[in-house]
Amino acid sequence: MSRFWNDRVRGLTPYTPGEQPKLENLVKLNTNENPFGPSPQVIAAIKGVLDEGLRLYPDPDGQSLRRAIADWYQVTPQQVFLGNGSDEVLAHIFQGLFQTGQPVLFPDITYSFYPVYCGLYGLEAVTVPLDEGFRIDPAGFRQANGGVIFPNPNAPTGCLLPLAQVEEILQANPHRVVVVDEAYVDFGGESAIALVDRYDNLLVTQTLSKSRSLAGLRVGFAVGHEDLIAGLERVKNSFNSYPLDRLALAGAEAAFADGEYFQYTRNAVIAEREKLELGLQALGFNVLPSAANFLFVRHPEHDGAGLVQGLRQRGVIVRHFNKPRIDQYLRITVGTPEQNISLLDALPLVINEM
Amino acid sequence: MSRFWNDRVRGLTPYTPGEQPKLENLVKLNTNENPFGPSPQVIAAIKGVLDEGLRLYPDPDGQSLRRAIADWYQVTPQQVFLGNGSDEVLAHIFQGLFQTGQPVLFPDITYSFYPVYCGLYGLEAVTVPLDEGFRIDPAGFRQANGGVIFPNPNAPTGCLLPLAQVEEILQANPHRVVVVDEAYVDFGGESAIALVDRYDNLLVTQTLSKSRSLAGLRVGFAVGHEDLIAGLERVKNSFNSYPLDRLALAGAEAAFADGEYFQYTRNAVIAEREKLELGLQALGFNVLPSAANFLFVRHPEHDGAGLVQGLRQRGVIVRHFNKPRIDQYLRITVGTPEQNISLLDALPLVINEM
Repeated sequence: MSRFWNDRVRGLTPYTPGEQPKLENLVKLNTNENPFGPSPQVIAAIKGVLDEGLRLYPDPDGQSLRRAIADWYQVTPQQVFLGNGSDEVLAHIFQGLFQTGQPVLFPDITYSFYPVYCGLYGLEAVTVPLDEGFRIDPAGFRQANGGVIFPNPNAPTGCLLPLAQVEEILQANPHRVVVVDEAYVDFGGESAIALVDRYDNLLVTQTLSKSRSLAGLRVGFAVGHEDLIAGLERVKNSFNSYPLDRLALAGAEAAFADGEYFQYTRNAVIAEREKLELGLQALGFNVLPSAANFLFVRHPEHDGAGLVQGLRQRGVIVRHFNKPRIDQYLRITVGTPEQNISLLDALPLVINEM
Repeated sequence: MSRFWNDRVRGLTPYTPGEQPKLENLVKLNTNENPFGPSPQVIAAIKGVLDEGLRLYPDPDGQSLRRAIADWYQVTPQQVFLGNGSDEVLAHIFQGLFQTGQPVLFPDITYSFYPVYCGLYGLEAVTVPLDEGFRIDPAGFRQANGGVIFPNPNAPTGCLLPLAQVEEILQANPHRVVVVDEAYVDFGGESAIALVDRYDNLLVTQTLSKSRSLAGLRVGFAVGHEDLIAGLERVKNSFNSYPLDRLALAGAEAAFADGEYFQYTRNAVIAEREKLELGLQALGFNVLPSAANFLFVRHPEHDGAGLVQGLRQRGVIVRHFNKPRIDQYLRITVGTPEQNISLLDALPLVINEM
């Protein structure tokens, strides 16, 4: 605490990202990174702009990348907003598109950055409980609010809300922006981007960190009505003119150009997820149905924190949230076949020692 | 305007960055980029991490880069804060370290992003007039305020405030954070980082966009007392955990490792600036004394906007600010010898046509 911190800083409860361990040889299944590297075309594209051109500012509007994303989703570039990771996109949404004076609604179990943004921008937060099966209940989003946000599939549960139920939430909130945070949608969901031309209150966010294997490049985006995008542009241009560097712009554009690699790797992750699910069930774990690149699991007889601790001692890192309702759960990223086998081999040993 | 924009967005007046023209063969002297490319070691370092590791998140704390900057300036890594360009660093400072309820003070002629940040974070702004010679007057910063910020050298004037006068401002404001924005300091100034251990209210910001030739990579930083840095970390970790991508972290670190290239190129820019100044004076221009990589000039007989327009028609782009006191001035980036000659050759033709 410093006397120079203003009230805003004093009141913050910052987000804690998943650990990025420095050790080699760890089986790192804690931050939902893709087990595959990015497309070779991404590497080649970045190499192609890796020269003395770095002395020049990037395109502040990222027009070429916006066109590539627009083409992929059959929307216009004016419906696409870019950010330095989808976290930055989300921050700008909270700051500019959620109405103050009424609470932002989101699930009680969800991405834990949402309440942090509320704290940063002086917004009240009200959580809507998931049902017994950890599913989002659209009925809970029929109360007065200043905006709605939920991930689909949800995190850290992995559970998918069908598009028809997303529409229920949109229709219940015609005067508020409804944000569908689709960080994981490519691993088994259907994107609500298909609905943006019918709902002017819908904003969909996505990231290249997961299905495009580019967590290290920091690129995210939002798609929605061009008036919403224009509002985000106003915030962005009042914050940082050039959020994406020249290398990230080129690499991200190449990622959208290589559709074949994208399809191949996401299908491989889905297939691995299904194998991992069976393996965990065989060890007695309850596994929530996942449409993401991770599984949210608990063992009916063994303490969640103890399992996480035991795995760590054996060099396998998974994520644990010390929070109500989910403190017995482990969130396990789907890794390579070898990583997943390491996990499945370690678990019986860990359980034996408990 | 959209009904979904909240009051914050409606009230914004976003910043307008200098144009990034798409045309080839332009003599681009409008955004103060370095005429030299980055160090070859920067390119090599980025190549060295340009692989499947991009699937992994970067180090959220950028520890290795912080150490490199700390070593360069003989401070500790806990005294260094990183951001996605110094614009992001400045935004976090305005949000977290300037006290609300009292105005932020900055010069009347200065970096035009400062009032934009005030608008974004609901801060009042009060400007302190430069003196007749366009110099910052420390006496103007003795009034009640919620924080002080000024560039040194100032932009777009290029004028340098001696460190003794920076200290006057620091001593006059012991209970407020004083930010010295040193984007251009390497081209002729003495950094106030030398003072951070003596003034716990001092925060110095710098960028790799200018003297390190990395505008396209988006890396900036702040140096100050570790309590100030901790406050900025709280804001950053409530906004975006990973503002710098893996390539930017590696490239920036390599830039600090190659001190020889840095010294060579900044001296070359300074030498070119001196030649350009003489050339402009020979054409009748008044040139403000510059410690930056640009010159702020006016012709006593010819309209500033007209000169800018005429140069543009001849493929030379310089920056013009349509603002009180400076609307007759041109801000001209120091380019390569060839670019500077193109400018000096074009100007007499432009003047003839006016």
